Amino acid sequence: MRILTTISEMQSASGMSRDRGRRIGLVLTMGALHEGHLALVRTARETCHWVVASIFVNPTQFGPDEDLTKYPRSFERDAALLEQEHVDVLFAPTVEEMYPTGTATTWVTVDGLSDKLDGRLRPGHFRGVATVVTKLFHIVEPDVAFFGQKDAAQLAIIRRMVRDLSFPIEIVGGAIVREPDGLAMSSRNVYLDGMERRQALVLHRVLSQIRKMHEQGARDAGLLASFGKHEIALEPAVKLDFLEIVHPDTLDPVASVKDGALVAVAAWVGETRLIDNIILPPDQH
Amino acid sequence: MRILTTISEMQSASGMSRDRGRRIGLVLTMGALHEGHLALVRTARETCHWVVASIFVNPTQFGPDEDLTKYPRSFERDAALLEQEHVDVLFAPTVEEMYPTGTATTWVTVDGLSDKLDGRLRPGHFRGVATVVTKLFHIVEPDVAFFGQKDAAQLAIIRRMVRDLSFPIEIVGGAIVREPDGLAMSSRNVYLDGMERRQALVLHRVLSQIRKMHEQGARDAGLLASFGKHEIALEPAVKLDFLEIVHPDTLDPVASVKDGALVAVAAWVGETRLIDNIILPPDQH
Repeated sequence: MRILTTISEMQSASGMSRDRGRRIGLVLTMGALHEGHLALVRTARETCHWVVASIFVNPTQFGPDEDLTKYPRSFERDAALLEQEHVDVLFAPTVEEMYPTGTATTWVTVDGLSDKLDGRLRPGHFRGVATVVTKLFHIVEPDVAFFGQKDAAQLAIIRRMVRDLSFPIEIVGGAIVREPDGLAMSSRNVYLDGMERRQALVLHRVLSQIRKMHEQGARDAGLLASFGKHEIALEPAVKLDFLEIVHPDTLDPVASVKDGALVAVAAWVGETRLIDNIILPPDQH
Repeated sequence: MRILTTISEMQSASGMSRDRGRRIGLVLTMGALHEGHLALVRTARETCHWVVASIFVNPTQFGPDEDLTKYPRSFERDAALLEQEHVDVLFAPTVEEMYPTGTATTWVTVDGLSDKLDGRLRPGHFRGVATVVTKLFHIVEPDVAFFGQKDAAQLAIIRRMVRDLSFPIEIVGGAIVREPDGLAMSSRNVYLDGMERRQALVLHRVLSQIRKMHEQGARDAGLLASFGKHEIALEPAVKLDFLEIVHPDTLDPVASVKDGALVAVAAWVGETRLIDNIILPPDQH
């Protein structure tokens, strides 16, 4: 596995791969890799000739009061994990390489989606995401890029951006990977102490209950959401940011889940913010 | 010359050209072609294996009170001119093909430049330009794209955008092409009647005088600008929008032109808005 740190080296390596007719797969990460990332890398490895993974903790998607400086970093371990998965190139630029002036001065914004779900509570977050993903797409020029379903709003925004701006790139979503007890894998799980770790399970438990209620015929989004909020409120150490039932593409709230829906939840467990979600499939006709 | 009208046809044709290792050149136009456009096409033809020209009158860069509906359209003539210049592909999508919902929903904005010069008087104009250029870049995937120097702010914004977002594309500026009497070529010149056509010459005359004063040692930007504005005010039918002396990259006003400067002018001649500019070279050290 080659480790490249400059934009020009990465563009040149990708250009050569492309000239040889290789199908290029890209997995973007902020490092602190877990099984969720590695599942995306494995899918890329199985479906592409040449796999690039990136590690870049992007400052422009963190708010001023967020955890940019303490975000977990484990470069040596991450690089070893990617090498085990037979990644061809790890692209790991510095902040200075990506933003010579310290921040972005050209921005990509997705109207109507960037202020939904996490975007409402994290102003500027999805603008930072869309901008850095655009830049990384131009640097690597992949044929296909893989994103986890765990950040469902991010996935919806990237799909819309790719369609709106006609990127010649296929976007593939990867299912959420969970710990044996159901907690969604997250780089931020390392922040949790033993007690918080147990309390955090309420998120997955509530989503599973909502899925079961849906299987048993419940279709009223308002009732399903009320149930979920009530259950989470019973866990005193968990502070809910939102539990919303929305259309998976527009992220607009739905009244009924009969045409399919995304149930997305975000909550603080102690000092740690966690997100999780499930997709309810549309009714068969 | 092939004429393509859908994004998927264009992406597929470009992909095949790229796979064959051809250097792809792109000239973006809104049609109503004149010698300024054709000079760019000739440069592309001389330096690239495969030349794409596009004709698309982009609605998202026109303000609500601007000349979108009356903008001159001459598709048959334009296509014949491009064929004479041995263009390989003319890409001419409809508005519906480019914006299925009628307008853009993902936008590209260049901070700090989009509100300078024309951008100050045409809010949203350069956001529309940056967005459509991004989309067309993704559709054609050129190695090099050619833009006229006449819209100096547009050229500066595209250069900045390409650098900020790491587009793997080289941007080449083409010198302003002028009528024999000095008027800068413009698709909007057809709006001028005989009297206005003569009055419009004041723009080039003033810029030439400023160039001569610069050659003779004048360096004070304020004095040069005052002179220019005064001269234009003497032409009663010409209403100045701005005459500004700015840094060619940042578009910020400069006090002295000793390090080089862009002298940009925009004015109404009757109902027609014209722009023109010159570059003053930096002093030799």
